[in-house]
Amino acid sequence: MTKKYGLHGKLTATDGNKDALASILVKASKLVFTMKGCHVYFISEDKNDPAAVWVTEVWDSKEDHDNSLQVPGVRELITQAMPLLAEKPQKAQELDILGGALR
Amino acid sequence: MTKKYGLHGKLTATDGNKDALASILVKASKLVFTMKGCHVYFISEDKNDPAAVWVTEVWDSKEDHDNSLQVPGVRELITQAMPLLAEKPQKAQELDILGGALR
Repeated sequence: MTKKYGLHGKLTATDGNKDALASILVKASKLVFTMKGCHVYFISEDKNDPAAVWVTEVWDSKEDHDNSLQVPGVRELITQAMPLLAEKPQKAQELDILGGALR
Repeated sequence: MTKKYGLHGKLTATDGNKDALASILVKASKLVFTMKGCHVYFISEDKNDPAAVWVTEVWDSKEDHDNSLQVPGVRELITQAMPLLAEKPQKAQELDILGGALR
């Protein structure tokens, strides 16, 4: 069986734009979670890294993940988020899912 | 509203024990996911870090997470896992959940 595909990544906002960035990503999460192959998709922050917003995802495959970025509503939200980024999104980890409880 | 509590952490196995460690953690995930307050709990690996196993969790609160470590079946699995660890478990990030789709 192919392992499910996970991604734990970090987006760092420019000064003062962290909440705006987080709000766009939360909107995106609501769209993305309805898509084919999506098991987990949540947005979070880490006290120790106040300008950063984390995105944690589990998909049936990397292909399903990649397709999610092409959907019209999601593309618009990405376009809104881009100018708020202080740097390129960082993939903290690309993960192969071994097990656990997923919807 | 209190934000949900997330944890993305890494367990590194001693030589040759990565698969055994992962298998114990997958067993633990099945117990833990039935517990009060657990929304996400999955086990994964990262090609770039072959001795490591990642545990990614979302709970209603840190308290619910802490309680999960005290449950008898889970404690036994922790006891089995401890001798397979090359180092103390690392909290990569403690996360406050901002949104997304969770069960």
